Amino acid sequence: MNTYELIIKKRNGGELSEREIAYLVDGFVRGDIPDYQMSSFLMATYFMGMTEKETLYLTQEMIKSGDTLDLSAISGIKADKHSTGGVGDKTSLILCPMLAAAGIKVAKMSGRGLGHTGGTIDKLESFPGLTTVIDGERFIRQANEVGFVIAGQTAHLVPADKKLYALRDVTGTVDIMPLIVSSIMSKKLASGADVIVLDVKTGSGAFMKKEEDSFELARQMVALGKNSGRKTVAVVSDMDEPLGFAVGNALEVKEAITVLNGENVGNLRELCLTLGVCTLMEANMAESETEARKILEKGIEDGSALKKLAEFVKAQGGDERAVYDTSLLPSAPLKVDLKSPVSGYVSMLQADGVGRACIALGGGRETKDSKIDLSVGVVLNKKNGDYVNLNEPLATIHASDAERAEEAGKLLLECYKFSETAPERAPFIKGIVR
Amino acid sequence: MNTYELIIKKRNGGELSEREIAYLVDGFVRGDIPDYQMSSFLMATYFMGMTEKETLYLTQEMIKSGDTLDLSAISGIKADKHSTGGVGDKTSLILCPMLAAAGIKVAKMSGRGLGHTGGTIDKLESFPGLTTVIDGERFIRQANEVGFVIAGQTAHLVPADKKLYALRDVTGTVDIMPLIVSSIMSKKLASGADVIVLDVKTGSGAFMKKEEDSFELARQMVALGKNSGRKTVAVVSDMDEPLGFAVGNALEVKEAITVLNGENVGNLRELCLTLGVCTLMEANMAESETEARKILEKGIEDGSALKKLAEFVKAQGGDERAVYDTSLLPSAPLKVDLKSPVSGYVSMLQADGVGRACIALGGGRETKDSKIDLSVGVVLNKKNGDYVNLNEPLATIHASDAERAEEAGKLLLECYKFSETAPERAPFIKGIVR
Repeated sequence: MNTYELIIKKRNGGELSEREIAYLVDGFVRGDIPDYQMSSFLMATYFMGMTEKETLYLTQEMIKSGDTLDLSAISGIKADKHSTGGVGDKTSLILCPMLAAAGIKVAKMSGRGLGHTGGTIDKLESFPGLTTVIDGERFIRQANEVGFVIAGQTAHLVPADKKLYALRDVTGTVDIMPLIVSSIMSKKLASGADVIVLDVKTGSGAFMKKEEDSFELARQMVALGKNSGRKTVAVVSDMDEPLGFAVGNALEVKEAITVLNGENVGNLRELCLTLGVCTLMEANMAESETEARKILEKGIEDGSALKKLAEFVKAQGGDERAVYDTSLLPSAPLKVDLKSPVSGYVSMLQADGVGRACIALGGGRETKDSKIDLSVGVVLNKKNGDYVNLNEPLATIHASDAERAEEAGKLLLECYKFSETAPERAPFIKGIVR
Repeated sequence: MNTYELIIKKRNGGELSEREIAYLVDGFVRGDIPDYQMSSFLMATYFMGMTEKETLYLTQEMIKSGDTLDLSAISGIKADKHSTGGVGDKTSLILCPMLAAAGIKVAKMSGRGLGHTGGTIDKLESFPGLTTVIDGERFIRQANEVGFVIAGQTAHLVPADKKLYALRDVTGTVDIMPLIVSSIMSKKLASGADVIVLDVKTGSGAFMKKEEDSFELARQMVALGKNSGRKTVAVVSDMDEPLGFAVGNALEVKEAITVLNGENVGNLRELCLTLGVCTLMEANMAESETEARKILEKGIEDGSALKKLAEFVKAQGGDERAVYDTSLLPSAPLKVDLKSPVSGYVSMLQADGVGRACIALGGGRETKDSKIDLSVGVVLNKKNGDYVNLNEPLATIHASDAERAEEAGKLLLECYKFSETAPERAPFIKGIVR
């Protein structure tokens, strides 16, 4: 067996065996297989794809390249959640405390990530003092005591993915379904949870722009999770416009709190409830979806979900008072309204453009070393389908200075399209893949 | 412009501009574009191909990476010839003196090459004393005086091709039509001839196994030559079985001499005449194909073509007496007949297997540093369609020792298939592309 033959086999449409995939992953991680052969193999995979079996073998081999977490010392059912990412995505901040309040253990590794805003870790750091540098013993203890812990990815999980992704990123081989599937699922499987719930976005602000691609990704991830012996479920939802109203780190934390305290009842709450219902059903912690939904809604109504968030913040060294008094979270010095240039209906609000406005404000990370301003961002006032009057605020821009506010305002205005009649609205939740 | 974008553009089926291709070739040769990006681009090209324009730009940029030969000091019309390679291919040794005898100047750079036997340079070295290390001044002088010179590739011609080929060779991206076209044609165009004649092989012993692929290669090379302002023509011929009867360096020189002295009137002579006729017609040195053929046949009949070979050998420091007394060429100590195991018709004689037998005898080069035994090889007695009696010799094996002769005999026997009835014979010359 040699790498050259395996490139040719993939290029010519062959199916690689478990041994052949192990040879590739192993050799690449050890440095025996040079980048120029691996990138050629990856580009061949772009065109020829991978079978379900190949994807499973690839994922298994990638997991073997590093450590795996043993969560057996955590009592009860452990759940993990992954989002394919989008603009204004603060789902973890809501779903995790809701699940913890319902008795599910959430022991989660999370990343910072490049993008329009920071990752969950960045958002959490809006709480003064909060740390996500949590060692293994404390991780297990907090999961048992609070029911909810989020640590930065410090463990040596799936180094093959890191090395492979760095190569894919510069060789035009990122958007390959089986590689996306194995990249996401290898980390989730290595993290040891019993139930994996996948939040798959679709639309202009999502990694997958087309609904059929998003469903295919969901289907492949769920199949892989199940074939690996984990309960796995995916919810596909809209990311044509941003999720919720706030885009920006501390602003998103504030919005998450409004959902947890019952004030915010839009799509964001609906998505968190749907993901939560799926998790409870997979965990056999409810007889029916109706019951599962009631359990989760009760957590919001009686304040126990918000209390879980406060306990979590405190356990991780943060100021838990900020959960009840969000004026303690970072806030930007300048708030500027973006006024509508017309009267009419909002017929489009492009998520990725809103993300770019947030980056322009300093709220996102363009390179690995970028510093993030946690206070800045955008709070949308009008979204797709809303009626707006001339000069009525479309959004409020939270900025560090007037110059950045102006630049973000221009970018933001470009995201809006208007129409005289009310546009048709597509359903927000596109479907569930079990 | 950056490499990543160009990879994506090619991957998604776009056509690269002249500037974009220049950026890639230039950056790769200078080392600014890493191998792992170039191999990814090459694999995308495997799947998406290149347009005629892209292939032309690529070839032009590759030529710019090194020197080009200026043949203007050579009087008359200069012709160059390229073969896509096969087993028993001694065409250059016959065609070049035939053309020189007809008044065409042949000023040719040639290689050693990996393969079943050596390249033309190796074969020529069968003449005791002959050198192909010819400096520029001597090259021009010999072309003018003798009308025929062959030098080893010492000039700094198309270094981009060398670097690109080394990468293609290990990344599964060799068999990509536009890259084959630009690799061959960049060197021919850089070598400065007025007329380029291409000997394209097809069949089991050729690089292109399928006739349609061979014609496509011929078509693309001819189009590229013409678009570059050169007279270009290609002859597509059979390489299912070896060309002629001899396979092995000195043995092929001997067979070439039998064609030049009129003894050998089979396919090999026919191919050389066809290539020669095409060259004379492109050079406007004959009114009709019939006239061109007569000119070339006269060169054989009156001994002037053989005399040109002798003049050439002498001019390059070799013992020209060997042209008229081939016992002065290297010969193997052992000659063993391979006897037929059956009576019947030869229904198949696989060229590539005969080539492997020659390698087993030590007559071919497996790696760049292999030493070649010029004396060994195979002389076929029976070819496709011939009738053979039980125990009649199929071929004579010329070997350095009995062990190698036996191994070669086994390999050779595997190349033969027999039938009770005479097989249909496909035409040898498949077509001409102008």
